[in-house]
Amino acid sequence: MTAAERLVVVGGDAAGMSAASQARRLKKPDELAITAFERSHFTSYSACGIPYWVGGVVDGPDALIARTAEEHRARDIDLRMRTEVTEIDLDRGRVRTRELDDGGRESWTGFDKLVLATGARPLRPDLPGIDAPGVHGVQTLDDGRALLDALEQTAGRRAPLDTPGTSAGRRAVVVGAGYIGVEMAEALIRRGYEVTVLERSAQPMSTLDPDMGALVHEAMCGLGVETVTGTTVTGVLTDSAGRARAVTTEDADHPADVVVLGMGVRPETTLAAAAGLPLGESGGLLTDLAMRVRGQDAVWAGGDCVEVHDLVSGRTRHIALGTHANKHGQIIGTNVGGGYATFPGVVGTAVSKVCDLEIARTGLLERQAHAAGLRFVAVTVESTSRAGYYPGARPMHVKMLAERRTGRLLGVQIVGREGAGKRVDIAAVALTAGMTVEQMTALDLGYAPPFSPVWDPVLVAARKATAAVRAAGG
Amino acid sequence: MTAAERLVVVGGDAAGMSAASQARRLKKPDELAITAFERSHFTSYSACGIPYWVGGVVDGPDALIARTAEEHRARDIDLRMRTEVTEIDLDRGRVRTRELDDGGRESWTGFDKLVLATGARPLRPDLPGIDAPGVHGVQTLDDGRALLDALEQTAGRRAPLDTPGTSAGRRAVVVGAGYIGVEMAEALIRRGYEVTVLERSAQPMSTLDPDMGALVHEAMCGLGVETVTGTTVTGVLTDSAGRARAVTTEDADHPADVVVLGMGVRPETTLAAAAGLPLGESGGLLTDLAMRVRGQDAVWAGGDCVEVHDLVSGRTRHIALGTHANKHGQIIGTNVGGGYATFPGVVGTAVSKVCDLEIARTGLLERQAHAAGLRFVAVTVESTSRAGYYPGARPMHVKMLAERRTGRLLGVQIVGREGAGKRVDIAAVALTAGMTVEQMTALDLGYAPPFSPVWDPVLVAARKATAAVRAAGG
Repeated sequence: MTAAERLVVVGGDAAGMSAASQARRLKKPDELAITAFERSHFTSYSACGIPYWVGGVVDGPDALIARTAEEHRARDIDLRMRTEVTEIDLDRGRVRTRELDDGGRESWTGFDKLVLATGARPLRPDLPGIDAPGVHGVQTLDDGRALLDALEQTAGRRAPLDTPGTSAGRRAVVVGAGYIGVEMAEALIRRGYEVTVLERSAQPMSTLDPDMGALVHEAMCGLGVETVTGTTVTGVLTDSAGRARAVTTEDADHPADVVVLGMGVRPETTLAAAAGLPLGESGGLLTDLAMRVRGQDAVWAGGDCVEVHDLVSGRTRHIALGTHANKHGQIIGTNVGGGYATFPGVVGTAVSKVCDLEIARTGLLERQAHAAGLRFVAVTVESTSRAGYYPGARPMHVKMLAERRTGRLLGVQIVGREGAGKRVDIAAVALTAGMTVEQMTALDLGYAPPFSPVWDPVLVAARKATAAVRAAGG
Repeated sequence: MTAAERLVVVGGDAAGMSAASQARRLKKPDELAITAFERSHFTSYSACGIPYWVGGVVDGPDALIARTAEEHRARDIDLRMRTEVTEIDLDRGRVRTRELDDGGRESWTGFDKLVLATGARPLRPDLPGIDAPGVHGVQTLDDGRALLDALEQTAGRRAPLDTPGTSAGRRAVVVGAGYIGVEMAEALIRRGYEVTVLERSAQPMSTLDPDMGALVHEAMCGLGVETVTGTTVTGVLTDSAGRARAVTTEDADHPADVVVLGMGVRPETTLAAAAGLPLGESGGLLTDLAMRVRGQDAVWAGGDCVEVHDLVSGRTRHIALGTHANKHGQIIGTNVGGGYATFPGVVGTAVSKVCDLEIARTGLLERQAHAAGLRFVAVTVESTSRAGYYPGARPMHVKMLAERRTGRLLGVQIVGREGAGKRVDIAAVALTAGMTVEQMTALDLGYAPPFSPVWDPVLVAARKATAAVRAAGG
């Protein structure tokens, strides 16, 4: 009998543990030994849930953990928590690890197959005071716990929920008005803070075009969030104890009892870079369609540490999103386990909310379409989420981009209230299928008054885009 | 200057008036004279909204009227209300009309182009007592008003909303547990009635497979609706005044203060049949892709009176649905007005709700796939509408059919709560694009905890269907 193959997984969150679990489904322990290393206290958790945990909407951290370390171990995955991989030695097929809680003991572990799922790290600009106590990232469950502890200390006790009147002047500053930033703004409002969001761009949600971002800006104002746009953070002021007490910009100081960084993330590929593995423009690992690292026979990578193929622009992009990480893990595990699966790519779909405002996008923004060399038309329509006469019908805006001449759908952005956001899926599937906006006008979408106007807002946008393509000529 | 062409439109609801309006956009009155005949009191209204009007959820009838007769007339459409077309004379290019409120005066109107939008009529089986006062259809706004008047008389006054405790034994029987039937069940519960729904099939919602219908059955029971399935209505018993007082089946009498017929509809094509126009199996008019009646140069038809091409089965079907009628009207008006547009067909999408239960389908049921000569696999999954840990996450069931060997998606059925129904649009677009279930597993759908689990329930179903296709072999 031959010895079992050795699989090593670096990173114990969505991509890594999905890969390990799927490989284990396909291969028994006597065929494949699986060792996974995770440096944090948590495994297989929903980082996307952290803003809702901080906001007190969901319990945490246990509820956010899809599968515990014990559950993985019960399925014959040798999961080593609080163990950091510090070096990848591709030539000798081994990784060096350090046990973070055990005096830093180091050792080497050999592998026949390697999966890199090292995730992403939050952007933390090199500014005075940025590392002061009171400045928080919200990337990991450890971050979430630290932030919640800070909120308790700030208040002297856990802040009451939904009682803005009791805020007693407690102030939070969120740096960055992207997905994490707006979700954290909601969370901190729920915790009773006065919230200021600072954003470098002219509008919040720079993952939308500015005209759609302006709708978000207006709505956030209505929700009681002060959003300062077009401003550059220059540093964090600290008090005599060294704790953050204000965020400074070129124009003003913004007092803060707590500061949250929501400036986006970058692929965490320090190890991969040191090992000479190929990285894209964003610093993310480059893989083939089977999620194998380019040029490598026995190394796969997935999740927030890779670049993915954008089916609309034809480029590779970095998109940190749990749903992709889970798919990558599933595909990697299948391939590592001797099966066959591929990840064709993404169309750039994202959906989020801040209080009752829903924000979604898929495909390309105007600037992305320009950068991809595409000529296009862009239209925006306002419609309602349900039949206009049905209770709960709320206005929603849909922006649609279509290629000139061909009429091919290039992207959709949605800003609205309840029922608006998930409509982006219609466009996500249409983009994947390469549909034209004219083809979309005939889509047989679900209609009944509680669910949609007789012309779904996406169809209204498709009709207007079709007319615009025709009017634009070649 | 040549005389204006003459367009006659028969039927002044969604399809007819959309056609007239779109034709008017393209042609001025001196180019095209438009005359439209409508026999009821209302034009351009949302019949789909009637259950919500009866239920007191929306105001009516005005709110349900998209555009009044006066508004149409202001746009140079000569709309004749309460005027019934009684004969189509294709040879001489004219229609005979009768004015219903004016002593029945008859006259002829000539046309160069004709649009038939005569709608559908509710099924009304030839049973003893079926025409008694107290037995109501819910097809037109006139029907809705008559039913509301009857509810008032039954109660001595308009029944209070949402106060089931005050029902004082007032009982409603709904015949038929399809879309209209379940929507009317909700409406009558809201009006304080004890509601019994009688259904011939083994399960309610025979537009779903029986296993999914069983989920609806169970949920309706939980909502306080008594649903008697597998029963055939034999007649309506009347009291000494001739009013309906009970619905009889083979097994029992079901006392009723009011009876609502929700047994579906058939195309209203009596005029077209008399004129020798081609009808399909369902009795609906047959058209080409431009919605022109087959074999006719100058006659178009659309809305509930036509059969549509089913893109999945390759057959023609009758589907009465406002969203199709509006599309047909738009396309007919474009073609009548000298433009070019086609209706490629439907995939059979429908969505409905009864109280908080959402019910949706698209594509083929098992029996329809069999009838189309397809070999297929069918899988069902249970998941949640949001991340499991997020408040408001509710269970939802997704059933998916895929063709054997090719893995092509054939149909999806969904039963769940809030957020479940409109997910059917994902499948509707995928069906239109001819996607395989394996392709669907990679769809880049909107993910965030308030909107979806990390694997959207439709993706979970696609994964299971993919495995089933593989397991089924050829």
